[in-house]
Formats: sequence, C-alpha cells, structure tokens
Amino acid sequence: MVRDRLGVAVVGAGYWGPNLVRNFATAPDWSLRAVCDLDLARARALAHRWPDVHATHDLDEVLRRDDVDAVAVATPARTHGDLVARVLAAGKHVLVEKPLADSLEAGRTMVTDAEARGLVLMTDHTYCYTPAVLRIRDLLAEGALGDVLYVDAVRINLGLVQPDVDVIWDLAPHDLAILDFVLPGGLRPTAVSVFAADPLGAGKACIGYLAMSLPGGASAHVHVNWLSPTKIRRMVIGGTRRTLVWDDLNPAQRLSVHDRGVDLAQQDADAGDRRRAGVSYRLGDTWAPALAEHEPLALVVAELAAAIREGRAPRTDGHDGLRVLSVLEQARAGLRAGGGSVPAVQPDVPARQLVANRVRA
Amino acid sequence: MVRDRLGVAVVGAGYWGPNLVRNFATAPDWSLRAVCDLDLARARALAHRWPDVHATHDLDEVLRRDDVDAVAVATPARTHGDLVARVLAAGKHVLVEKPLADSLEAGRTMVTDAEARGLVLMTDHTYCYTPAVLRIRDLLAEGALGDVLYVDAVRINLGLVQPDVDVIWDLAPHDLAILDFVLPGGLRPTAVSVFAADPLGAGKACIGYLAMSLPGGASAHVHVNWLSPTKIRRMVIGGTRRTLVWDDLNPAQRLSVHDRGVDLAQQDADAGDRRRAGVSYRLGDTWAPALAEHEPLALVVAELAAAIREGRAPRTDGHDGLRVLSVLEQARAGLRAGGGSVPAVQPDVPARQLVANRVRA
Amino acid sequence: MVRDRLGVAVVGAGYWGPNLVRNFATAPDWSLRAVCDLDLARARALAHRWPDVHATHDLDEVLRRDDVDAVAVATPARTHGDLVARVLAAGKHVLVEKPLADSLEAGRTMVTDAEARGLVLMTDHTYCYTPAVLRIRDLLAEGALGDVLYVDAVRINLGLVQPDVDVIWDLAPHDLAILDFVLPGGLRPTAVSVFAADPLGAGKACIGYLAMSLPGGASAHVHVNWLSPTKIRRMVIGGTRRTLVWDDLNPAQRLSVHDRGVDLAQQDADAGDRRRAGVSYRLGDTWAPALAEHEPLALVVAELAAAIREGRAPRTDGHDGLRVLSVLEQARAGLRAGGGSVPAVQPDVPARQLVANRVRA
Amino acid sequence: MVRDRLGVAVVGAGYWGPNLVRNFATAPDWSLRAVCDLDLARARALAHRWPDVHATHDLDEVLRRDDVDAVAVATPARTHGDLVARVLAAGKHVLVEKPLADSLEAGRTMVTDAEARGLVLMTDHTYCYTPAVLRIRDLLAEGALGDVLYVDAVRINLGLVQPDVDVIWDLAPHDLAILDFVLPGGLRPTAVSVFAADPLGAGKACIGYLAMSLPGGASAHVHVNWLSPTKIRRMVIGGTRRTLVWDDLNPAQRLSVHDRGVDLAQQDADAGDRRRAGVSYRLGDTWAPALAEHEPLALVVAELAAAIREGRAPRTDGHDGLRVLSVLEQARAGLRAGGGSVPAVQPDVPARQLVANRVRA
Repeated sequence: MVRDRLGVAVVGAGYWGPNLVRNFATAPDWSLRAVCDLDLARARALAHRWPDVHATHDLDEVLRRDDVDAVAVATPARTHGDLVARVLAAGKHVLVEKPLADSLEAGRTMVTDAEARGLVLMTDHTYCYTPAVLRIRDLLAEGALGDVLYVDAVRINLGLVQPDVDVIWDLAPHDLAILDFVLPGGLRPTAVSVFAADPLGAGKACIGYLAMSLPGGASAHVHVNWLSPTKIRRMVIGGTRRTLVWDDLNPAQRLSVHDRGVDLAQQDADAGDRRRAGVSYRLGDTWAPALAEHEPLALVVAELAAAIREGRAPRTDGHDGLRVLSVLEQARAGLRAGGGSVPAVQPDVPARQLVANRVRA
Repeated sequence: MVRDRLGVAVVGAGYWGPNLVRNFATAPDWSLRAVCDLDLARARALAHRWPDVHATHDLDEVLRRDDVDAVAVATPARTHGDLVARVLAAGKHVLVEKPLADSLEAGRTMVTDAEARGLVLMTDHTYCYTPAVLRIRDLLAEGALGDVLYVDAVRINLGLVQPDVDVIWDLAPHDLAILDFVLPGGLRPTAVSVFAADPLGAGKACIGYLAMSLPGGASAHVHVNWLSPTKIRRMVIGGTRRTLVWDDLNPAQRLSVHDRGVDLAQQDADAGDRRRAGVSYRLGDTWAPALAEHEPLALVVAELAAAIREGRAPRTDGHDGLRVLSVLEQARAGLRAGGGSVPAVQPDVPARQLVANRVRA
Repeated sequence: MVRDRLGVAVVGAGYWGPNLVRNFATAPDWSLRAVCDLDLARARALAHRWPDVHATHDLDEVLRRDDVDAVAVATPARTHGDLVARVLAAGKHVLVEKPLADSLEAGRTMVTDAEARGLVLMTDHTYCYTPAVLRIRDLLAEGALGDVLYVDAVRINLGLVQPDVDVIWDLAPHDLAILDFVLPGGLRPTAVSVFAADPLGAGKACIGYLAMSLPGGASAHVHVNWLSPTKIRRMVIGGTRRTLVWDDLNPAQRLSVHDRGVDLAQQDADAGDRRRAGVSYRLGDTWAPALAEHEPLALVVAELAAAIREGRAPRTDGHDGLRVLSVLEQARAGLRAGGGSVPAVQPDVPARQLVANRVRA
Repeated sequence: MVRDRLGVAVVGAGYWGPNLVRNFATAPDWSLRAVCDLDLARARALAHRWPDVHATHDLDEVLRRDDVDAVAVATPARTHGDLVARVLAAGKHVLVEKPLADSLEAGRTMVTDAEARGLVLMTDHTYCYTPAVLRIRDLLAEGALGDVLYVDAVRINLGLVQPDVDVIWDLAPHDLAILDFVLPGGLRPTAVSVFAADPLGAGKACIGYLAMSLPGGASAHVHVNWLSPTKIRRMVIGGTRRTLVWDDLNPAQRLSVHDRGVDLAQQDADAGDRRRAGVSYRLGDTWAPALAEHEPLALVVAELAAAIREGRAPRTDGHDGLRVLSVLEQARAGLRAGGGSVPAVQPDVPARQLVANRVRA
C-alpha cells in the first residue's frame, strides 16, 4: 500500500538544509518528519516553524522511525559516505547534496550499495531542475543548436572560502552536473586539464580553470573563482547550427539563442593570403525563449517521490553523481601532478538503474 | 640637425595599415612619404586621399629615400622577420605591428640587429597607449590594488579565422602585451599552461585558454575565442587591496575599482566546521575613474618620434615584444606536447636599450 | 507599564499582507495576534504557519482584544478611510499601506483623528526604509549632490492592471514618498502636470507621466507604466555638484554618484555662434557606495514600535502620506481637466506630530 | 542629359558639415564641388583633404556655379530660411539639416517655394536611414506589432547646451522624425503636452518632456535632457500584438521584439476585488533581428541623388519636416502658455510632391 504522503527527514541544518526543509514541508508528496543536526540548537531553530517536525541530533533515532521513507543529506561532502551508508542500511531512500561524495570511490560505494538494496539514490543536482537548464536540454535534444562544438562556463563571485573543499569541488559540480544533464550522451570527457591558484595562501585553490576534451573534437571549459568582486554565472554552448548563451543573473533574458557563427566549407588550397577560403560567417537573429518561473527544489523533491513510487531511477541519480565525481577526481589528480592535462578514465557506470518499488505500507 | 618632421613609410595596406596611415598623416611629428603593398592597387587606394603620399609595391624604392626616417610594418607576422631586416639594413627605424614576429627566434634577431645598428625598434602594442591601460598601469604602480593576486582576461567575439595564425597568436598578444606593460616587473611567468580547441576542423585553434603562473603565487589566465556570438573584452586584476575590472566595451564605465575581496588572517586550527577562521570579507565601495578620450595610435606615433629624437627606447620596445613572443612560443610548445603546463623559460632579454640619436640632418 | 512586546493584527491577506505578517511574526518588538480578512479562508491560509496567530474575518473581534496595540491595514485604498476610523476609535495605533487613502480628504480625516486621540498613524512607505533610499537621503542631507536641479523617475514593467486604481495611484506613490523622504524640505511642488493614457480601453490610465515644478526652479518627473515588456526602476537626481543614479534592478551597483554635469558661469553676451560662453562641463569620476543588505519592512515594523513606545511621530507619518496624496489629487484634477499643468495647492499639513506614549500596561 | 555625377556644395563647416562632406566626397552619385562657411578658415580646414573641393565663404559664388546641382545646408536652424530661399532661387535642389527651420512658417515657405520651382527639398532626418529605423518601419508596416498603443522615447546625455535652441528643438526632432517615418500615417498628434525645465538658469530649457495624443487612443512621449550624466537612447513602441524596444546604445541587441503584454477581453462587471476580470497577460519569447551595418548618411545622399534624377520626392521630404516643425511649434506654444496640453493643429501639408526631373544637362 502506498501512503498518500511519503515521510522524509533532513540531515544537516546548515546552508542548504533550510531550503530542503522548506520544500519538503510544503510539497504535496511529502510529510517532513524530522530535522537532524549534530548541533541540536541549529536543528531546533530550523524545525521550529513546523510544529509537527521533530528536531534531533541523533540520526539513529531518525532511522528507526517507520514513518520515514527517505532521508535528505545536506552535510559537508566528506561526511556523505558514512551517512549514506547508514541511511541505506536502515532501508531508506536517500537524496544527497552535491557533490555526491568527496571521492569517486566513496560515491561508487554508495551507488553499489543502493542498487544492491533496491533503494533510490538521488543526487541533488538542483540546477538540472531550473527552467533554464530544462530548456537547454530540450534545445540540445531537438537539435536547435546542432552538434556541440564548445562549452564555456563561468561561475565566479566573492564566495565563501570553504573549510573542507577547494573552489573546484565547491562550484564546478554545478556546471559539471549541468553538462552531464544537457549534453546528449552525458559528460564523458576524453581528457581533463586543470589550472588552479591559491594566491591568498588559504591552503586550497580559490581560483580554478577546468578544461575537458569531449568526444568528436568538442571541448568544455569551466572557470570558478571565489575571489571575484563581481558575480558572473554564464554558460555558452556553441553548436554547429546556433550558439546558446545562458546568463543566469539576467532575469530579463536568461537564455538567448544566437544564429551567429562560423561555417567551414572545404578548404581552397590556392586561396590567397587575405581570402578566407572556405570560411563563412552567419550573422542572424537572436531569439530569447520565455521561461516559466518555478522553484527547482520543488521539482527535485517531487522527482524523488515519483522515483520512489514508480520504482525507477530519478532524473539525476547516483550515476550522474559519479560522472561528476570522476571529473573532479581527475582534476584533483591533475593538480597533484602539477597541473596539465590528464587522460580521462571513464567511471565504470552501469546502465540506468531501475529500482523496485519499495515504498512500505 | 633635426628636421621639423620625421619622414615615414607604411608597409602593408591591409587591416591595420589604414589606421597607421591616418595617424602618421595627421601627426605633427611626421610626414607620411609612402605607402607600400605588394598589391599596388591596394596601396594606391590607401594613399589616394593624401596627395603627397607615394604609392608603391617596391619596398627597396622606399628604403632608398633619404626623406624616410622610419618604416611602419603592418603585414602578416610571418613576413616581419625579412621586412624588418631590410628596413634596419637600410638604416631606418622601425615600428612593427603585433606580434613582433612569428617566432621568438625571429624576434630576437630583430632586436639584436636594431641594437647593433643603434636604431629604434618599437612594437606596436597599441592597447598600451589607451587611456584605460595607462590608468591601470598607474593604479598598479601607485599601489592602489596592492600586490597582484590574479588576472583573468577574456577576449572573445565572432572573429575572422585568420589564414596564417591561430586564435592564440591572433588575440592573446593584446592581453600579454597589456600584462607586460602594467605588471610591475613585466610579464615573466614561471609556468605556462595551454588548452586549445579546433572544433570546426579549421586546421588551427579557434578557442584558446592560456594560464600562467606568476612569481609570488599570482597567476594570469587569458581566454581567446573566434567563435563566440557575443563580444567580450574584459580583464580583472585582483589585488591584495582592491580589484580592478576593465570592461572595454562599456564606454560608460570602462574601469571600476572594487574595494571588495577576501582577507586571510592566521588560520585557527581548532576552528569548527562552518566557521571561516581567519577569513574576512571586504564589501566596500566601487570607484570608476573618468578617462580622457584619445586615440591610442596617435600616442604610438608620437612615442616613436620621441624615441627617435631622444635616442632612447620607446615605451613598448623590442624587448617587450620578445616577452610576449616568449609566452606565445611556450603555448605553442605546450600545444604540441598535448596541452598542459610547460615550465616557462625566460627570454634572454637584456636591460632596456638606449639607442643613440640617429636622426639625420 | 510597557510590555516586552507589543501586540499587532494585520488586516488584509492579499498581496502585501503576507509580507507584513512575516515581518511582524519574526520581529523582536512584536507579537502577531491576528490576521483578518473578509475572506476567512485566505486569512487562515496566511495565519496557518504561525500557531499562535488567530485568523478571523471579523475586525471588531480584533479591535476588542486588549492585547492588540496596533493594527496594520493592507487592504485596497478605498477601504482605508473606514477601517482606519474604526481602528483609531478602538484606541489602537495604525500602520497603513500606501497610498494612505483614496483621496486627500479621507487622508486628512485620518490624520486629524489620530492626532486628536494621541495615536500613532504611520504610512507604510516601505521604500523609505531600503538601504538605497536611506543612503540617498544621507547624501542629499550632507550636500554631496549640492542643490537638487531635477529628478527623473521611471517605474515601468508588465504590471497588474488594478481593479480599483489607475497606474498613477498604484505606482507613483512609491516615487512620491521617496521624494518626500529624501528632498530636504519634503515634496512641496508649486505646480503639477500630468499626462496619462489608456490605450487598451481598460477604463483607467495604464501609462502615466507626472511632472512637478519644485521650489527654486527644480523639477521632478515620474513615469509609470503597466504595459512595458521590460522592467525599469530608476531614479536620477541631478544636483549642482553631482548627479545620483539609482538603478534598483542592478544589485551590483544600485547607487552611483557621478561627478559629471554642466556648470554655468556668467553669460557672455557677445559670445559667437558656436562658443558656449559661460558653460563648462565636468567629466569626473563615478563612485558607487556599498550598501548593506536588510529587509526594509523589518525597519518599518521596528520604527512603528519605537514611535509607539517613545510617543513620537514615526519617520513616515500621516503628514508624509498627505503630501503624497496631495500630488495624486492634483494629478487627478489635472486629468479631469484634460491634462496639463495645475498650480499645486499645498496640503494644510501641521508640524510633525508628537504623540503621547499611549502604550497600555 | 543627365551627368554621371551630380554636383553638390556643403554650406556650414561646423558639427554636422564634416559628415556631409565625407559622405558626398565618397558617394558614387556625387561630385563634391565646394565647402562654404562664413569662417573661411573652417571651410578650408574641412575642404583640405579633398584636393578638388573649393573652399569659400561666399555662398553666391557657389550658387553661380553651373556644376552645382544641389546644396546641403548644415548651419544653425535660424539661418535655414534665408539660405534655402537663396539656394532655391538659384535653381538648386536642397538638403536641409534637421530641424528644417526655426519656425513652422519658415518651413512652410521653403516647401511652397521648392514646389513652385519644381526642385527637390529634402530634410536630413538621418535616423530614418539607419538599419534600426528602417527595420522598425518594416515591422510596423507588416503588422508585426499590431496597432500602436504607445511610444516612449528617451534621448538623454550630457549634451552641449546650444546657443540658439533649447533641448526640445535640439534633440526631439530626431524622435519626432522617426515617429513620422515609422508610424503608419505619419505623426499627426491630436494634442501636444509639454513640460520643460531650466534648472541652471541657462535661459532655455535643458530638460524637456513632450507628450502627444495620437489618433485612436494611442500616445507618444519624448524625454530629452542635456544634463544627464548617463547616456540613454531608447524607444519603446507598444502594440496590440507585440512590443518593440530599440536600445540604440546596445550594439549587441539594438532591436528586440517582445511577445509580452496585456490583453483586454470584455469586462466582467461582477468581478471581485482581486480578480482581474477580462485582463490576460502574455509572457512570450523575445526576438532580436540581426541588422546589417551601414552608414545612414550614405543612404541620405544616395536618396537625394535618386530623387533629383527621378524627379520625385525623397523619402524624407519637406512635408515630413513640416510635420516635425508643427509639433515643435505647438510645444513652444504650450511652454509659452505655462505648459500643459495644447490641441494640435495639423499643418496644412499637401499630398506627397512629385517634382519634375530638373537635373540639367
């Protein structure tokens, strides 16, 4: 028997937890049962507005509850491995904040574990549920841009210097998850190059540049920076037919599709010095699709519920998380090796999971 | 005896030549004598507006003229070596369009040759004479930004795919020359990383990313792209005190100086998970200095005249050109090696030249 | 005896009510007692999150409560007169959403009534409590702009066509209240001109232009529009020394102060045709002050509490509301007269009120 | 017999004259014969670059030349009447800088005179030949915007305080000429309102607001300002189907067409307070057409030649100039009457002229 509402607990009352709490508390699919944080006062402050929500610092207490079907983990990445293992062992589905784990190995263990137990493991790649990214995915899928030639992503602002991760592990997962979501075939780089800098002596990179060779001659570049006085969140996807610009901080025109670009015909071997043989330029119109407004996290929690009820993998599952972790790991390896390009090893990610319906009566 | 006006000829009537012609023709220091191009019709079309200017396709004819003191070379980079050698051999001073040459070796030969002959060799790093760059140089020199932590430059647009050079050799010289001009101590990277892509199969890179480690933990990154549907010319220079943003396509506010940034105090080893021990954030005012308007090329030709008359090196001399070429060469080497970081070899650039006054009576 | 917290009820659960509820519910000065709306379901939906807050459709029930010290009125403007009369008759202080009333006469009655009873009447001119407007007021007060020469305000977007008011009464109160707040001496136009249009045939103006002559030769212009596909909220205040631009939709630089302008020296009667005798142009720097972030409505409710406790007029009191109404009335009269300029009649507004402390034990 | 090239002289070597000279000198239709200015040195400085062009301060000398078919007048507006009368009396065609004259009467005399003599009188409404305005005219003609509901134009910057005209006569002619050009039926307001300010005491308006009622309930508003520290050139044309935004200072997207707006169905008389009966909102896509780049003045001089050769009225003829003057006159009358709305009197403009081919052998 499927209950009207699934029960959920949120672990971690820090930066992201309140957003999860608010969305689970107001979602038609969910009953928020508990908020858990090692700092009980923080858990209480967060649960306080919701009279029926229990605040605790004891995860085991949460995991023993029969009315909790799923747990959302919003703690630092290095704690994800242990927490998810405990949640899965208790037979609960799990939603994990990005990045899925602090290492590819830890992520892979989670995925294997969830599959063995037939439980849903969803990665909270929130950006994949924004109107902009959903539209980008559609545009790419329907061929509006043609084949992807290059991607250039910039995500910079005056950001918090994180205690446990560098800027690449903090910010790049957003762009990598988006790329994995929108690129036909997902994110499967053939090589990863990285350059990073710690000019403040913070003990970790505060500026990072990540370059990826993609199959078929395409490439993707991600620039992340905690030290920028100005804030930019911009992704350009250049295709053979059109080029898309996503400027997430321009609400009046977040997406624009430019019919502008360079076309290459066959080369003319005898072309003179100044002739641009075989090259032509398109200078066409720009089109900015209207986007509906919705809160992406509301779609995340709805998708989690649907995946549980339908016994299927969510749109952003553990394998998606692994592909992101794989690039992050290779960037880390590249940095340890003194920067430069590292041939990418594809994570051994099986086909998309189909979990049995395990929602209890 | 110094003449009232120096005589000059312009070689190359292509993209840049007309700008040189217009500036030499209207400069108080100069008499434009001739325009030379292998394509005589093109030379004539350019010279036509200036009744006293001779059009020719014969450089030797120009070099034989006694009333020509200097020659400006605005031809493709691969021809610079031979042309400059002939100009110097004729005892003329020379202004060379960027990049100085198509290889470090060719550039070094020019510099050595000019020094041996006591002639002025000036690199036309035009951007270094813009009001914005002159002001950036002053701001850095007077310490308004503190020590440089990082530089991030973006120079992208739908650009002409050049027949003879890739996008790095076409566009990056601008940013490298600017960095060499404004950074106290010039541009002397300790390592150079490069990533480039040719997604169109044009036979040369159309997208390039160049990362440089600078002495003292700083870094600089340059992004150049011929395929972008939108045009961006933006440089950010982050310093320990303030951060400068130069947005060259925003005439209403080209330069802004932001008193915003991250400060690092000593680390507190016992700091809890979410405390940002030792890190504080400045969120101060922004200041946009007014810039006078002037045409930078007018300053270039005035500086060339002054250097010749005063027997001194110009503000952007051959050695500056060599430092730029040195980075370009290392990028080329990095690309040949499959991308990645290459330890930078400093060009063997002697101290700033002081040429004798050779202006003839 | 003053209670730790004052009690408040919010009347009107429509567009603005939820913001008042949220701020009163979380303010340290206040205990939110009740939410009242003729539509009980709407009152309940709003009160639901706050377990101790009573939902009702009966204002008398609210007014009978001893633990309610003040009432916030967020209903359509045409209902303000009756509601405020009932609130004041019950001995409660009152906060009224802008515009204070739907006519100057109705507003004047409120003010007289509140003064007679020694009760605080505060107009919710929320914008006057934003960081930007508080800073503008300071800049004008300290003379940073010099004397005001002109004001140009634009507030346009694709807005809701209101059922009861036209675009001038809907949007212009924001700008008029801001002008009243920041101009030394408040908003006291000597003439009001108006132009309005109803191109859709909506039965009310959807586009409005309001021009005011200010004392000393200055002027102010307000453009409001419900039909604009793009959103602009921009105010320029030109002064004899500097000019301020407030672009409320540019979070990266909401305020900028421009040292640019025209200076007029004594005229030279014999000046030739093209000489600009006596006119000089300043082209100085721009400065963008950093603004702290805070929610303005939190300051509004704090100011209401402080005014009640200290027995004084709030920063935006009934007289401020009257000055705004006075301009709106004159615009209405101008429109009825077929548009054009109407000599402004100053509202008979007494000196700032000082109410006795009437907070009950 | 029609000559290969028509002969032209330019009168007035001030601000606009050099642009006319450059375009006539390089146009295939024209031979520039003379530049005339009361200040001979200025005429010479301008003619100097063109060896075959005669410089003079004597208009009669120019008018006596048989090889001059047309004269372009680029002098202050108050001199247009006399100059054009002399040009026409000499049997020459004439191009007149905007505004056509400094009074409607003077303009009307020119038009009558030219028609009586069968000569071409063209008003140099340069903006009507820009790619943006030509495209706007096409979009309106083909119904892409539906019926025009409103126009809002802003043309402000730190401008030169002109010695002979106020800001309305200086800047508004641009917008009025554009409206006359793009509106189906031309610019024929039924009423004109004006508000202007001279806060500096310059003796003339430096800030102006012009509102026009158009037939069918539409309206147009023009804001001009010489004192603004920032520069805006923006026109919004709201239609029943779509709304166009022309931002002339945004080269990346000068024109955008927004499928956003308010639609009005029949009103529902019983609609409740907060229901927006009969009103619906479109929130569709935005489309930015690519614009070819060309110099508008090159089209102006080509159109003048074509009109002369073909014996027809040019696209912007004297009658267009009269419609613009008519609005300016009514604004002047409104200002003299203390501001406010003035019922518009339509200029008695006959049907479009068809002049006989008078180009001499």
